[in-house]
Amino acid sequence: MYSFRTIILPSLGPEALSPLSPSHIQDPASQRLTWNKPPQSVLVIKKIQDASLLQPFKELCVFLTKVKNMIVYVEKKVLEDPAISGDENFGAITKNFCTFREDLDDISNLVDFIICLGGDGTLLYASSLFQESVPPVMAFHLGSLGFLTPFKFETYQSQVTQVIEGNAAIVLRSRLKVRVFKENWEKKARVDDMGIILTNGDVDCGRKVAQYQVLNEVVVDRGPSSYLSNVDLFLDGHLITTVQGDGVIVSTPTGSTAYAVAAGASMIHPNVPAIMITPICPHSLSFRPIVVPAGVELKIMLSCDARNTAWVSFDGRKRQEICHGDSITITTSCFPVPSICFRDPVNDWFESLAQCLHWNVRKKQNYISSEDEF
Amino acid sequence: MYSFRTIILPSLGPEALSPLSPSHIQDPASQRLTWNKPPQSVLVIKKIQDASLLQPFKELCVFLTKVKNMIVYVEKKVLEDPAISGDENFGAITKNFCTFREDLDDISNLVDFIICLGGDGTLLYASSLFQESVPPVMAFHLGSLGFLTPFKFETYQSQVTQVIEGNAAIVLRSRLKVRVFKENWEKKARVDDMGIILTNGDVDCGRKVAQYQVLNEVVVDRGPSSYLSNVDLFLDGHLITTVQGDGVIVSTPTGSTAYAVAAGASMIHPNVPAIMITPICPHSLSFRPIVVPAGVELKIMLSCDARNTAWVSFDGRKRQEICHGDSITITTSCFPVPSICFRDPVNDWFESLAQCLHWNVRKKQNYISSEDEF
Amino acid sequence: MYSFRTIILPSLGPEALSPLSPSHIQDPASQRLTWNKPPQSVLVIKKIQDASLLQPFKELCVFLTKVKNMIVYVEKKVLEDPAISGDENFGAITKNFCTFREDLDDISNLVDFIICLGGDGTLLYASSLFQESVPPVMAFHLGSLGFLTPFKFETYQSQVTQVIEGNAAIVLRSRLKVRVFKENWEKKARVDDMGIILTNGDVDCGRKVAQYQVLNEVVVDRGPSSYLSNVDLFLDGHLITTVQGDGVIVSTPTGSTAYAVAAGASMIHPNVPAIMITPICPHSLSFRPIVVPAGVELKIMLSCDARNTAWVSFDGRKRQEICHGDSITITTSCFPVPSICFRDPVNDWFESLAQCLHWNVRKKQNYISSEDEF
Amino acid sequence: MYSFRTIILPSLGPEALSPLSPSHIQDPASQRLTWNKPPQSVLVIKKIQDASLLQPFKELCVFLTKVKNMIVYVEKKVLEDPAISGDENFGAITKNFCTFREDLDDISNLVDFIICLGGDGTLLYASSLFQESVPPVMAFHLGSLGFLTPFKFETYQSQVTQVIEGNAAIVLRSRLKVRVFKENWEKKARVDDMGIILTNGDVDCGRKVAQYQVLNEVVVDRGPSSYLSNVDLFLDGHLITTVQGDGVIVSTPTGSTAYAVAAGASMIHPNVPAIMITPICPHSLSFRPIVVPAGVELKIMLSCDARNTAWVSFDGRKRQEICHGDSITITTSCFPVPSICFRDPVNDWFESLAQCLHWNVRKKQNYISSEDEF
Repeated sequence: MYSFRTIILPSLGPEALSPLSPSHIQDPASQRLTWNKPPQSVLVIKKIQDASLLQPFKELCVFLTKVKNMIVYVEKKVLEDPAISGDENFGAITKNFCTFREDLDDISNLVDFIICLGGDGTLLYASSLFQESVPPVMAFHLGSLGFLTPFKFETYQSQVTQVIEGNAAIVLRSRLKVRVFKENWEKKARVDDMGIILTNGDVDCGRKVAQYQVLNEVVVDRGPSSYLSNVDLFLDGHLITTVQGDGVIVSTPTGSTAYAVAAGASMIHPNVPAIMITPICPHSLSFRPIVVPAGVELKIMLSCDARNTAWVSFDGRKRQEICHGDSITITTSCFPVPSICFRDPVNDWFESLAQCLHWNVRKKQNYISSEDEF
Repeated sequence: MYSFRTIILPSLGPEALSPLSPSHIQDPASQRLTWNKPPQSVLVIKKIQDASLLQPFKELCVFLTKVKNMIVYVEKKVLEDPAISGDENFGAITKNFCTFREDLDDISNLVDFIICLGGDGTLLYASSLFQESVPPVMAFHLGSLGFLTPFKFETYQSQVTQVIEGNAAIVLRSRLKVRVFKENWEKKARVDDMGIILTNGDVDCGRKVAQYQVLNEVVVDRGPSSYLSNVDLFLDGHLITTVQGDGVIVSTPTGSTAYAVAAGASMIHPNVPAIMITPICPHSLSFRPIVVPAGVELKIMLSCDARNTAWVSFDGRKRQEICHGDSITITTSCFPVPSICFRDPVNDWFESLAQCLHWNVRKKQNYISSEDEF
Repeated sequence: MYSFRTIILPSLGPEALSPLSPSHIQDPASQRLTWNKPPQSVLVIKKIQDASLLQPFKELCVFLTKVKNMIVYVEKKVLEDPAISGDENFGAITKNFCTFREDLDDISNLVDFIICLGGDGTLLYASSLFQESVPPVMAFHLGSLGFLTPFKFETYQSQVTQVIEGNAAIVLRSRLKVRVFKENWEKKARVDDMGIILTNGDVDCGRKVAQYQVLNEVVVDRGPSSYLSNVDLFLDGHLITTVQGDGVIVSTPTGSTAYAVAAGASMIHPNVPAIMITPICPHSLSFRPIVVPAGVELKIMLSCDARNTAWVSFDGRKRQEICHGDSITITTSCFPVPSICFRDPVNDWFESLAQCLHWNVRKKQNYISSEDEF
Repeated sequence: MYSFRTIILPSLGPEALSPLSPSHIQDPASQRLTWNKPPQSVLVIKKIQDASLLQPFKELCVFLTKVKNMIVYVEKKVLEDPAISGDENFGAITKNFCTFREDLDDISNLVDFIICLGGDGTLLYASSLFQESVPPVMAFHLGSLGFLTPFKFETYQSQVTQVIEGNAAIVLRSRLKVRVFKENWEKKARVDDMGIILTNGDVDCGRKVAQYQVLNEVVVDRGPSSYLSNVDLFLDGHLITTVQGDGVIVSTPTGSTAYAVAAGASMIHPNVPAIMITPICPHSLSFRPIVVPAGVELKIMLSCDARNTAWVSFDGRKRQEICHGDSITITTSCFPVPSICFRDPVNDWFESLAQCLHWNVRKKQNYISSEDEF
């Protein structure tokens, strides 16, 4: 069991007593982190191949180990970096670290808390390590602010202390649970592309299922082909449309500000329980992005008359081919990522809209002139 | 008290037991209408000045009165239409009708059920009659399908019977509760523009508050001025951006397929608990529409440096000027409109996307050609 | 006759000899200003009601009069500003100025050169003063760079000298010649809204014609009405589409970066001989902006079934109502505005895209992450 | 020499005499086909692998040979199709055909006239066969109307006769001349990917140049990589911006309605002398498509800090990798494709906008309602 839980502060007034009161209306700024017991183990994720992160990483690890007396988990290959393994002073510290290897060791029940150093990609990577519940994540950007990395490193000591003491707002970032069903997988599927292989009951008839948790988006596109992709999109079992174009993005609200926004989507705050469907360069002028409730089940398959296969990727990873007969099902996961806020879910989001996307940042000017204005 | 309630069918599997299970994840197709007791009174709303509706209106009223033994409410001016008042046969029926006058008579606690005949405007009008709870609404399109009018009139008898018997899915369309605070209202405000005038406590200091429930959207625009509008947008008390352009639309998911989609918004299913903010012809290229959680409070005021006033309207009605010092607050209302589905919330929505907006309706064609394709 | 002409430097290679060589292909950076004789009279246009412009205006006028020995033209109301008329030193200078009144005095054949001080509006205003040929215009922004005002004032002396000596690139900004035909104008037309009133032949049958030259755009919109506008668009006599929405913008390439870009248009370099048609919040999702050749004739009329009138304005000015039977014809004018470049037509344009619209100004970031990237 | 030329009918009024008259303003409907002598040889292009085209193809060839006494050119592989080579009756006709092989035989000076049967791809293919001047092309769609295939086959006899007799409007569709400069080509370049290999002077220093004529667009994208592409865009030697996203499309006006429109571009009539630059899913919200004059030279290179290569294709063909140091230059070609109109350039274009893209095809509806409208 995890050592934290989310509490929802009561923020509704007397209207909440209305017989029709939508139970979903809550103040998104009200979610706060509460530890059942103080966190004891912490997973530190560092963007690799970035020399500027070495010193912050070491500092942080020393602080967590020596000052906070926490057990530090790091990935084995991080410590194998010569710039780290060659540092004798730091070497003494790392002897007490717990290490693990991606895809081989399961740490999902061993970690109380996650700290990320680097870009938004570190948080996507952290997400991929936890197929079920995810411990709270505190993410530092070292360069410029990211959507998923709200903390500055400069004052990490006081900030980490605040979080450990439970003084922190969190945003529960929903994830998508994606299953890929492969026909005739013996021939096609490459084992190292797969996530979880389900039990026999799911694999009979030459059919294989792989499951992924994605934090940003599932992308189905035409891959290296020059042809349009041609995929059918089903919602709760009904065919709702056929996507003809470069592809389609199914994203969480968190992912709405990533690839989806580049493809023309509106931006959705992470507290909205929804799934966004965005076509990529659709052939049809009227194929506007749509937003559906978090509770639906989506399915994507190649259209009967598709002349080419399609390719799917999950948060930009695990790219694989989709052939006739294969299918991808997508639902909102029951395991969101509890992401610790720098200020609160609302302010953090608008701050990153401005910083990362220059949202409505402009010089003031009047373009409609008239007599007394010129 | 109303004679109906909404029941949510249990549709969640074992994952719902997860400690992090988002309580908001529910199957949008699962909401069904349940009457506590059979509906006895029905409000019939008819688009006026449309001769093609006369015969259907009369037929429906006879059916409701004679066959279903219901008490029919109609607006007084509908019966005053010579085409109706001059029909002697129908006149005998209308003697038993209850009538009311808009803005003068309050029928909000007298009606169990609403039937609309005509375009989407009839449902907007119905919404405006109920500032608090709204009875279930069944809406017929006489011409082409609308987003808010899913039923065809041809088989109205069986369909109305089904609904009265409780065999119907409903979608709870959220509304926005909008309050307009006017400084110095004695001089400016016209009384007939106002909705509810609040108690003394709210009107002191020369300040007046009017409240509206909107189903589609609140629009703040530059009105007849050639100048850009210049308004500040606050969320939960924080200034999040300044809108410089033709204006801004704050809409419900229902309204996302109305004016907002024309201004470039993505389309949001009515079951998503969210508020959409869409700029109208913004001066900034990066001012993309955004979607925020249903629980926030928005506020709109003229910017300090705005050279012109702005204008606000509510579902296209009650257009009025906004001056320096005035403010508009917007929250999700606790009183949604229970809208009866023709099939279910998902199928109805996609059907109207295709019919009303030609969403992704296209001929199949490949625009990227290559050697073996031409 | 004007004292300048444009010369086109030969910039085409041997391919220009091809029998199919499109004669329109020329290097847009090659157009340079050439004076037939040195300019002797200069019209100075100043944005009014802007105190920060007073000192630059006075300095410039002294420089033009005393150093360059030019005849300065200014609008009468500019000199009537107390901040100018009250300055005794400057008063001595102004005695030698030529003054004129808008709409009353015609200076179109008296001026060799125009200098604008202020925002883009000054150039729109300058354009409106010249219904036929326009002298070369040099425009200074005092605050931030504008699309139409490329020069900084700081070094005005050397820059004006360069231009007078003919060392300047120019861009010929095309204008639109717009004619408004009013039915039954005796009742409706207000005289002060009209530009040029044509001869008897054009006014018979109770029909009146007014003509405008616009540099940015003609806008037809719904005005203060809440209803959609509904106008028919004809091209070379053929009905090409009906515009249903907030309105339609017909713009020059110069205007493509003004209101049109806010309504979703692509941006067109001023050297492209084209007319842009951009719907404003169109009801149809597929109503994308279009670009047609400069040589066509457009006509706009209310649709037969339009329930409301529309409103038209010309570069944001002369706003007037359009009724059933009225029509607006639009062609590329034979009288472009020769706009003097700070550097050259290409660099100036991209500089203003970046400065005025933040075009593609962003921080570098990778939103698609994968294994080795986080 | 070709046996046809284009004449431009005088369509300008007295304003054409203005000293500033832009020489580029001409009525796009005025271009008509004129044969210097009757066309004697005709290239027939047929979409392969489409059984429905066999009978029309045979009919047309018989008509051209027997009735019109023309020399028919067809590609060798077309006649090798068993469905054609196995038809004895038709075999007698084909003996008189001239055949050629793509990339091996040059027919560019042998053909007076081209007829295409099939989709838009046939015309792209025809274009690729002619690196310099292109004979007039008459294109039939067999199924649904295409942008490039305006003729219906049903009445081909009278239509072909009309064209041969010179009764036809044409639109000169501009092409782009694209050169790819490869560093270190010995290792990387595959010879069969290349078009024209220039003389020694161009190939020294291990540098190779290939040239293409494209009718729709050049696409530079990230290929199979998950990373954003990162390319620098130069105009007339100046760096104007860096494209970070899925890629960039440089298209002709003809190509504006193909891939570019799917990526968000406005649509440009083929008579506008311009080049369109459209980003594909750009990272920056403000990266709107731009339109530059036909006379400029564009250059595309990988950015210094690009971590991945990019891929380029030409009208969807000849896809190849672009590495650091390689460059792509793009100018308007002097060899447009004279495309024969069904009616005229304006009507044909709007007809195909409606048919192919459903441009502004919609049902009439009012989405802004008010009191008297519902």
